[in-house]
Amino acid sequence: MRLARHGRPGEETPLIGDAEGNWWDLSAQTGTIDAGFLSGGVQAAVDAAKAGELPAVDSVDRFGPPLTGIGKIICIGLNYRDHAAETGAAIPEEPILFLKTPDTVVGATDTVLIPRTSVKTDWEVELAVVIGKEARYLESPEQAADAIFGYAISNDVSERAFQIERGGQWDKGKNCETFNPLGPWILTADEVADPQQLGLRLWVNGEQRQNGTTADMIFGVQHVVWYLSQFMVLRPGDVINTGTPAGVAMGIEGQPFLRDGDVVELEIDGLGKQRQTFQQA
Amino acid sequence: MRLARHGRPGEETPLIGDAEGNWWDLSAQTGTIDAGFLSGGVQAAVDAAKAGELPAVDSVDRFGPPLTGIGKIICIGLNYRDHAAETGAAIPEEPILFLKTPDTVVGATDTVLIPRTSVKTDWEVELAVVIGKEARYLESPEQAADAIFGYAISNDVSERAFQIERGGQWDKGKNCETFNPLGPWILTADEVADPQQLGLRLWVNGEQRQNGTTADMIFGVQHVVWYLSQFMVLRPGDVINTGTPAGVAMGIEGQPFLRDGDVVELEIDGLGKQRQTFQQA
Repeated sequence: MRLARHGRPGEETPLIGDAEGNWWDLSAQTGTIDAGFLSGGVQAAVDAAKAGELPAVDSVDRFGPPLTGIGKIICIGLNYRDHAAETGAAIPEEPILFLKTPDTVVGATDTVLIPRTSVKTDWEVELAVVIGKEARYLESPEQAADAIFGYAISNDVSERAFQIERGGQWDKGKNCETFNPLGPWILTADEVADPQQLGLRLWVNGEQRQNGTTADMIFGVQHVVWYLSQFMVLRPGDVINTGTPAGVAMGIEGQPFLRDGDVVELEIDGLGKQRQTFQQA
Repeated sequence: MRLARHGRPGEETPLIGDAEGNWWDLSAQTGTIDAGFLSGGVQAAVDAAKAGELPAVDSVDRFGPPLTGIGKIICIGLNYRDHAAETGAAIPEEPILFLKTPDTVVGATDTVLIPRTSVKTDWEVELAVVIGKEARYLESPEQAADAIFGYAISNDVSERAFQIERGGQWDKGKNCETFNPLGPWILTADEVADPQQLGLRLWVNGEQRQNGTTADMIFGVQHVVWYLSQFMVLRPGDVINTGTPAGVAMGIEGQPFLRDGDVVELEIDGLGKQRQTFQQA
């Protein structure tokens, strides 16, 4: 099933939906979609939806972030061979880890702000993994499957000058306001036949810039979850941005970084579409 | 005034205290000490304490983290000249920024876990700044004063092999479980005459390892808050770890990294003392 939140910013109500695009109101089941709901409330909500007990929602106003109370957003850097190559970086021997703060998250169609002194704001379509169970020191990548609640689209917006030219730690260019559009929905893991066979696509002002597949990840989803659990505790409501394929502004001819008014659209198989207008802060 | 939380882990109740070590129960004023309380509830609590309206707390059980619902923990790297020198790093031209996740926070006397494969777990006594007002694009370091709610001790526990030898981004060695003891209390900014004149000290098994002063910071507290506000939004309940002076295990003769059973004590003028036993995870 799909889980989402719709409505005005800060006033979203929870939704559950199916692959045909039907949506039902989850307000009677839960106040929001958060770690507590992911850990304990989902099965009852799915059952209620399938039994026809929930009120249908005919039109979705605006998709807010599909998840609230996110504990942390862990990002994997250079996790596609073609993206590592375009940035001039070596293929990592093990996952590179950096962080985004949860308050960077906005909805799939919300405006993204270009920071005031930015000249190198860039896009990154990524498969986001949503954690559903606590995980520490997993013994194998196979064990990771049980910790994964579902998947969503993430735009890991990045300011390359802040990230690379201002002191060396990437976090400085990854945490500007509105820098992590997430959603429109979370698709539960049981409906993703193979997370390593998903197409990811991104367009800027209608021109396609990224066209990859998760089959090209250097470290697959289960490997990443297992690996991270050796360094930190993964908890319900945590999100992992698993890296981006080639085609970011930094890596292509002319480096066409984003400017006020640019429109970025993102798509991943089964996970819907995002569309953001970028606006100067 | 001092703000703290005491009691069993997960069941802490809020306290307000004075410089003489008196504590009063804040439960009637607020359920906890969080962003909402910092933004709106503190003055009424201070007034109630000063008016003698709050029940006295004769003995504090255990200091939990003095703050809940922390949005983000931003850390400044290499912010003391002597520490930069001992690690062999150049003096930064501008603040180096990395992140810790809020779920690494534990109380001032809680056990800290040495990660399973760790051989280089290290200590860092730091002045933590607690943000009390939203701040974005501050125009000057002087403006930052208004955003600072108070100060606390932070132990920015670090696994140096994870931080430096495993892919290049420091976050990997900064976010292990229990890696950020915070407290015992937050001292409100009005009671800190000069945040750049505070002594910081740290002992391991009784032997003093760090003995610095915030006067030696490369980038002072107000500069750091102003600087960070150019790259991200600071919000009430955010915490900034402002860097550590010389004397970490990585930088001293023999590199005496922490082992199971080691006891680390930390102290900053006016901010109390921490004491952690390190235990193999």
